[in-house]
Amino acid sequence: MNSNADIGGTLDHVAVVVRDLDQAIQIYEDLGLEFSPKREIVKEQAVQTVFASIDQQAHLELLTPFGESGPIHKFLETKGEGIHHLCFLVKDVELKTKELKDKGYVLIHDHPVKGANNCLVNFIHPKSTKGVLIEISQKQGASA
Amino acid sequence: MNSNADIGGTLDHVAVVVRDLDQAIQIYEDLGLEFSPKREIVKEQAVQTVFASIDQQAHLELLTPFGESGPIHKFLETKGEGIHHLCFLVKDVELKTKELKDKGYVLIHDHPVKGANNCLVNFIHPKSTKGVLIEISQKQGASA
Repeated sequence: MNSNADIGGTLDHVAVVVRDLDQAIQIYEDLGLEFSPKREIVKEQAVQTVFASIDQQAHLELLTPFGESGPIHKFLETKGEGIHHLCFLVKDVELKTKELKDKGYVLIHDHPVKGANNCLVNFIHPKSTKGVLIEISQKQGASA
Repeated sequence: MNSNADIGGTLDHVAVVVRDLDQAIQIYEDLGLEFSPKREIVKEQAVQTVFASIDQQAHLELLTPFGESGPIHKFLETKGEGIHHLCFLVKDVELKTKELKDKGYVLIHDHPVKGANNCLVNFIHPKSTKGVLIEISQKQGASA
């Protein structure tokens, strides 16, 4: 049964860290994906991102560091290119953060932070999820 | 533009390797996912699998080794639990295998093999895809 904070386990995106967006886009285009022309710099996370649809709701997000600091730069330096996280949509990310913390999950932020595409997000630490960094994301209106 | 072997970059599933299916199911249920009661043993891959819907077409696949051999057992022993691969649907996996090999991608199998859910599948080696093991899968009829 879903809690009040859920919207039923819908994937928002799979995020993949790469060194070069253009080279990575070519690979996924060879698999039939079509990318948005829009690239977004998320200063809070020190990344540049680009998205392609992979289902009705879901996207593939390619991430590359913007600058020489931040968690994605560190990931690339220590682990190299590869899948970084899965992101599931939630109705209320503040409520879901509290609900998961109450169940004993380790969240990266005490309260949600701004993510790409004007979403409010938080992350569940991989040590709580058997090795998978999981983002939870609440969509906001364009003017929110 | 999509080739004749593509159906437009649709995700079929994200596969996550875990040690214990029941414990992992509980985590994703806490995020609102609902799993199929059906568990499948794929002898060719030496795994047991269970699926949950995460979008209109896409699923989360939890994988655990069946027995003490096979690539998933080895992955778990060397890398531990975590995301294992992304699987995209293709119209014709034999044709797509040839098309990708002609472009210089390294495929795991010379010709497609049987996967879970009665699919025909092949895998693109992570060294060809900037660190992501990518499965390509062709759905077959129930009687195929």
